[in-house]
Amino acid sequence: MTESKYIYDFSEGNADMKGLLGGKGANLAQMSKIGLPVPPGFTLTTEACLAYWERGAGLLDDLWAGVEEAVARLEKAADKTFGRGENPLLLSVRSGAPVSMPGMMDTILNLGLNDETVEALAANSGEPRFAYDSYRRFIQMFSDVVLGVSSTHFENEIVDAKRALSVRQDYEIDAATWKKLIKRFKEIVKRETRSDFPVDPWVQLRQAIEAVFKSWNTPRAKTYRRINKISDALGTAVNVMTMVFGNLGEDCGTGVCFTRNPSTGEKGLYGEFLVNAQGEDVVAGIRTPQPIAELGSTMPTLYRELLAIASMLERHYRDMQDIEFTIERNRLFILQTRNGKRTARSAVLVAVDMVEEGLIDRTTAVRRVTPDQVEKLLHKQVDPSVPVDVLATGLPASPGAAVGAIVFDPDEAERRGDSGEAVILVRHETTPDDIHGLFAAQGVLTSHGGMTSHAAVVARGLGKPCVSGCEALEIDADRGTLSCGGRTFAKGDILTIDGSRGLVIAGNVPLMEPAMTDEFRKLLTWADAEAAVRVWANADTPADAARARDFGARGIGLCRTEHMFMAPDRLPVMKEMIIASTKEERVTALDKLQVMQEEDYRGIFRAMEGLPVTVRLLDPPLHEFLPKEAEIEGALKKLRDEGRQKAPETLALERTLAKAKALKESNPMLGFRGCRLGIIYPEIYEMQIRAIFLSCLHLAAEGVEVVPHIMMPLVGVQEEMKRLKAMTDRIAEELFSEAGRSVAYETGTMIEVPRAALIADELAEYAQFFSFGTNDLTQTTFGYSRDDAENKFLAQYVAMRVLPEPPFRSVDRNGVGRLMRIAFEDGRRVRPDLGIGICGEHGGDPDSIAFCHKLGLNYVSCSPYRVPVARISAAHAALGLIE
Amino acid sequence: MTESKYIYDFSEGNADMKGLLGGKGANLAQMSKIGLPVPPGFTLTTEACLAYWERGAGLLDDLWAGVEEAVARLEKAADKTFGRGENPLLLSVRSGAPVSMPGMMDTILNLGLNDETVEALAANSGEPRFAYDSYRRFIQMFSDVVLGVSSTHFENEIVDAKRALSVRQDYEIDAATWKKLIKRFKEIVKRETRSDFPVDPWVQLRQAIEAVFKSWNTPRAKTYRRINKISDALGTAVNVMTMVFGNLGEDCGTGVCFTRNPSTGEKGLYGEFLVNAQGEDVVAGIRTPQPIAELGSTMPTLYRELLAIASMLERHYRDMQDIEFTIERNRLFILQTRNGKRTARSAVLVAVDMVEEGLIDRTTAVRRVTPDQVEKLLHKQVDPSVPVDVLATGLPASPGAAVGAIVFDPDEAERRGDSGEAVILVRHETTPDDIHGLFAAQGVLTSHGGMTSHAAVVARGLGKPCVSGCEALEIDADRGTLSCGGRTFAKGDILTIDGSRGLVIAGNVPLMEPAMTDEFRKLLTWADAEAAVRVWANADTPADAARARDFGARGIGLCRTEHMFMAPDRLPVMKEMIIASTKEERVTALDKLQVMQEEDYRGIFRAMEGLPVTVRLLDPPLHEFLPKEAEIEGALKKLRDEGRQKAPETLALERTLAKAKALKESNPMLGFRGCRLGIIYPEIYEMQIRAIFLSCLHLAAEGVEVVPHIMMPLVGVQEEMKRLKAMTDRIAEELFSEAGRSVAYETGTMIEVPRAALIADELAEYAQFFSFGTNDLTQTTFGYSRDDAENKFLAQYVAMRVLPEPPFRSVDRNGVGRLMRIAFEDGRRVRPDLGIGICGEHGGDPDSIAFCHKLGLNYVSCSPYRVPVARISAAHAALGLIE
Repeated sequence: MTESKYIYDFSEGNADMKGLLGGKGANLAQMSKIGLPVPPGFTLTTEACLAYWERGAGLLDDLWAGVEEAVARLEKAADKTFGRGENPLLLSVRSGAPVSMPGMMDTILNLGLNDETVEALAANSGEPRFAYDSYRRFIQMFSDVVLGVSSTHFENEIVDAKRALSVRQDYEIDAATWKKLIKRFKEIVKRETRSDFPVDPWVQLRQAIEAVFKSWNTPRAKTYRRINKISDALGTAVNVMTMVFGNLGEDCGTGVCFTRNPSTGEKGLYGEFLVNAQGEDVVAGIRTPQPIAELGSTMPTLYRELLAIASMLERHYRDMQDIEFTIERNRLFILQTRNGKRTARSAVLVAVDMVEEGLIDRTTAVRRVTPDQVEKLLHKQVDPSVPVDVLATGLPASPGAAVGAIVFDPDEAERRGDSGEAVILVRHETTPDDIHGLFAAQGVLTSHGGMTSHAAVVARGLGKPCVSGCEALEIDADRGTLSCGGRTFAKGDILTIDGSRGLVIAGNVPLMEPAMTDEFRKLLTWADAEAAVRVWANADTPADAARARDFGARGIGLCRTEHMFMAPDRLPVMKEMIIASTKEERVTALDKLQVMQEEDYRGIFRAMEGLPVTVRLLDPPLHEFLPKEAEIEGALKKLRDEGRQKAPETLALERTLAKAKALKESNPMLGFRGCRLGIIYPEIYEMQIRAIFLSCLHLAAEGVEVVPHIMMPLVGVQEEMKRLKAMTDRIAEELFSEAGRSVAYETGTMIEVPRAALIADELAEYAQFFSFGTNDLTQTTFGYSRDDAENKFLAQYVAMRVLPEPPFRSVDRNGVGRLMRIAFEDGRRVRPDLGIGICGEHGGDPDSIAFCHKLGLNYVSCSPYRVPVARISAAHAALGLIE
Repeated sequence: MTESKYIYDFSEGNADMKGLLGGKGANLAQMSKIGLPVPPGFTLTTEACLAYWERGAGLLDDLWAGVEEAVARLEKAADKTFGRGENPLLLSVRSGAPVSMPGMMDTILNLGLNDETVEALAANSGEPRFAYDSYRRFIQMFSDVVLGVSSTHFENEIVDAKRALSVRQDYEIDAATWKKLIKRFKEIVKRETRSDFPVDPWVQLRQAIEAVFKSWNTPRAKTYRRINKISDALGTAVNVMTMVFGNLGEDCGTGVCFTRNPSTGEKGLYGEFLVNAQGEDVVAGIRTPQPIAELGSTMPTLYRELLAIASMLERHYRDMQDIEFTIERNRLFILQTRNGKRTARSAVLVAVDMVEEGLIDRTTAVRRVTPDQVEKLLHKQVDPSVPVDVLATGLPASPGAAVGAIVFDPDEAERRGDSGEAVILVRHETTPDDIHGLFAAQGVLTSHGGMTSHAAVVARGLGKPCVSGCEALEIDADRGTLSCGGRTFAKGDILTIDGSRGLVIAGNVPLMEPAMTDEFRKLLTWADAEAAVRVWANADTPADAARARDFGARGIGLCRTEHMFMAPDRLPVMKEMIIASTKEERVTALDKLQVMQEEDYRGIFRAMEGLPVTVRLLDPPLHEFLPKEAEIEGALKKLRDEGRQKAPETLALERTLAKAKALKESNPMLGFRGCRLGIIYPEIYEMQIRAIFLSCLHLAAEGVEVVPHIMMPLVGVQEEMKRLKAMTDRIAEELFSEAGRSVAYETGTMIEVPRAALIADELAEYAQFFSFGTNDLTQTTFGYSRDDAENKFLAQYVAMRVLPEPPFRSVDRNGVGRLMRIAFEDGRRVRPDLGIGICGEHGGDPDSIAFCHKLGLNYVSCSPYRVPVARISAAHAALGLIE
């Protein structure tokens, strides 16, 4: 029977052979291939693994001659001998599947040691303690991973030994004690497995290889593959590599370095190293590593070699590398290289620099920066240039930073938060009963609970910073104090939390608003070139519009006009309009408002010159512009108590009160608002439409290019759209003919109640564009009032996993998304050039943008600060990286 | 060229030739055919009409010889001569299309009169006044209908003549004056048409026939056909009939009779007649007609003949007939017979009697009673056995009757109405500003405006009785009085209005609640045999359930449990449950409620023995069970003012207030309610489910057959349904195993938010039935809060024709209906035996039932009183009479 080739020396493979050699094996082969000093080794292929699962242990018999030959080649290369002799060859054995996955066998180091070879190692290295320590580590690892003997047994022995020696650290244990412990370890193995610990290195090797094969089908690995849709037919490879040691003397060392700064992205080797040490020593925190640059003075030749290798690796992999190296007796070995993890800031700079260095193309640069990273760049952050007084560190449970007064009671948090004060809610842990407090606070800090604790989940749901599980805090809610490391803070004291890093900081730390760097801008421009769906912004003021444009918005998808009416100089006129008892009175007030609106629109159209501006006509119920009933009643009582029953103020207030009562609604969300206002009181919309066209005509006369889109809110009936379109066209005709000039405009509608989506074909007969108002559409589709749901039952629904996440975060594809698809398809069927966008908050959410891309929308419109996230998301959606 | 046969004598046709002879022509032919004494005549076919429109006036030339021959046959039959001689033949000319439609040419009577023949008629009849009166009527009619000269010209002359004679009525004008007026009339025709009035009877006949042909394509007729989808290719026939006269002496007469009582349905000739009179005399109201029975003593032979004819006609047409007859010199002529219009009560009795008489089959009986009629039988009505004091008559603008105190001001109506008082809003006319008053009143009465006035439209929209345009009323709102015929009523006086008949009645008239007669029950049972969709009822109490069953409900589609909690003995326990601060406290209260609920359910299940009872678990937000905040605050203030700050009542109230505040929602409709309660506080639903199963087990032990369906409200997420189904099954298993007995049950869900419909496939995995809650589904699909919309903008939307009717009346097919179709199809795909019904108010609306039938629902569930309407509607839907 012809056998496949199951064994490849590192020198035989290359990076393209991931399927056969696994990721790690292909990578080691590639490094060998390009001449890097990788410790020699070989790989048993994934096919060998699959054959093992098909044929069982017999497979190992069949290929064993090949393993022996491969080990012989390693012996030759290292001038060492495996399992015998003065200079024994030690090996590491590692799993390495084509895709990285958890649940696979851990690394076994120092394989090949036994009672004989350990003595040779001791003699040869001149370091008996090192040799015995290596040996006992090997026994521990092998027993745990291959033989299934729990590490605890061995750890307990070590603890006892340290107690007997009155020392605290492992490295204080002497060679003799290790030797005794090794004996004890073997006894434990015998007791637990009813077999001797294998002393024959060939048996060790065979069992280690078989353990790797077996680990392919552990329940954990199988579950992971099922969830992540990874084929069971991939198999895992086994990498067998010659051990090298960084702890054989002062001419040895070990280190980790990045080819660029993973924090800032700055070019140049970045990392640290330790002389005469093993990787584990860095982890154990015994000695402080030195910055990598100092290797230049300590071992200048090797440093230059490392620089050259780093540069070669980066050019080879065309990405920033995270490199592990070991120096054994003045010889540099590269143990591993992989693409380096990096901060958002670094990701952007590295990607852009690499394009400019010709290493990668623009598309690749865009691929390398995720929406999450862009989002981090746009979060409020603690200013790193300011020294901070870190009180304690907890879990980074929900990103962003917040500053506020310490409050222990959720009711108080709500009261103070509602009155506009910034508070941080501090609790042992939170429960569903605290939600109103979380809702009102700027951020949350808990002393208990992990990343999935109630506080963490709810805070992420609310988009608020949270540091959880900060056990160092002592909270005494009754006394109203928070203590930490001997310092005590009282209720009301100011605290800063950094939910991105899990820091609790004393006092008011200045927070950085997001900012755009030149590289960031460049990258986003490249992203735009990849994207199919455009990014517009929601902006209500000229300043917002300018900011949106600066962030790269290609239009305004939602300009709400009601905020304009809330300005102190407008509100009285708006009130005058609302309490008017005749159409004439109403029109008088509207005339005043028209002049103001015209000015508002002029500013926005000017800021967006040449780009579309979608103005939504008045949407909220009119009572939102009147004071609350209780407020009016209070003022009235005061006037009456002063005996001013007949004063004009009193009479005016009485009218306001009557109107407020008449306009009161039990469910304002579903009430007399949106285009219903414009249909019943056409003079209001007529005023707004006139103001829009007059401002456009004014600017057009100045030569400014304006692209007005007029959008009707809350349309749900064809007749509404038909009449409002006719109203718009009539006013346009009148004003254009008066002005002797016209501007191109579009009239369209929000799709924000389910019925609008369901009758999209009818609406498209009159509407030139649709804009999905997914906030309201989500509310009406689910029957969730956002105001009520988010701090009443929705956070709990998510915590209880009734819903995977609040539907106000990402578009609910099965429900709301299905309506969107219906509207899209029916609308486009009737009007093939129908413009379709989204202007709900989902417009800034990567997952929702991927959905909008898939649907084929023309644009997503989001808040100005989210425009960059949306731009990168649109590109990633087009590149198929999110869907 | 071979001509079609364009002319049929009455004796040639039959009832099946409606397409060719028109409805009227076929009917006259049929009567002739069965030997009834119909005045001889002939019909020009609809094909002649179509040929006329194709070929123009030439068609008349071609067929004229045929007309002359036909007239000759009439001359012979009557022994009279057309347009000449001592005994001139006079004709009537009428249009008659295959389907009855407005806009067609009116009747022309007495055709054939001119200056010569009128003298012969005068001599021959011995009644010159009759002859000249007939002549002038002919001129007026002909001029108006054929020549297009407005009647006003002639009426003005008559008014002048009466003034000159100092008389008030037309019949007081003597022969000489009519003769003068005839001369004047001809001058008017000459002036207006620049032609002489045609004196040649053949010309008259030709022009009259042509006028009928032309009237087929008047704009009004064309519009009517377009709207009602009637083909333009039908054409109209022309009926030419010999005139007979009932006013030639005491051996003459005229009358109208029904073969059964059109009001009660009682068998036996019913009608009235006048001796020596024309039909018009009855209309003019000069003399009071005599009951038809008296004809038996006046003209016994003729009466017997009439009885025989009536009986023959009824047997022939197999329906109650409305017969017009004339007696000319002791000879009986039947001028017309048609199916008689009848009241709802009569319709039921006639239909059932006819089945029992073997005249029609059951299906035909069911076809003959419309949902509208059944609805009338079920409306509150003025008790006809009670003498009433009718003040005035207006338009029957919105059906039903109401009693209440007179109120002139809408604000006052709202105030008094809201406080529970029954009021009738009385206005000159209403405007959109009055809507809150209309909303709060029991009924509306206006002195101005027609059937489509604001008051009428809005009242119909609100389902309230309305009498509009009652001009006899003098309303003085300032003084607060209402006068009519010299009587004056003050604000607050009690009035009754009958909106079905347009009556305004003084005082409090007893109203009849709907009742079931034996015939009605019988008819509905026959209806059930036709129907595909079953009728269930919404009932919350054992009494409701019993009533529903009595009305023929085959199950309970919605048993709301929240009303049970509102009972005075339960509310305190419910409050206790709500303000519980721990789960333990809550469970204690729930245990008490469980005992009560068990009893409630026992009653309902017992009443519905053998039929399914669908119990919906708790739905409304919890705050609905607590007093209003202001109320609690008031009570608290009182306690504090009494110095009882620490009293237990005070503390309890404080807790209640805190809870009420915590539960307060800005949009309760979209808030923390429905199954959201059951998910977050599972103990509430667990209690209800336990109570249901315990009551069922109890009854089952008694041998009562129970069919429980447990329904979850407001489900919108698969996980909700999954968990609640599991909860139900778990409790069932526990209780059944404890009891050692089990009952079959189903678990299902309301479909009342759009998302539920959109993920119906996911829900059907766990739900065994769906029930469309179209009230809420309409609210969320449109984004209309019913509470806010109906009295704020919705009535105005309907008045402005933005919407054809409020979507809470009939299912909105394009929006809500589309969601229903999606849910139906997706649900049945996953679970082919999924039971699907509707339990919103639409379940009792005929149009919506037709839609449900079309969709294929298993049942509609409506309020007990509407069950009969639903049963007949389900049958009519199956018979294709409504769709």
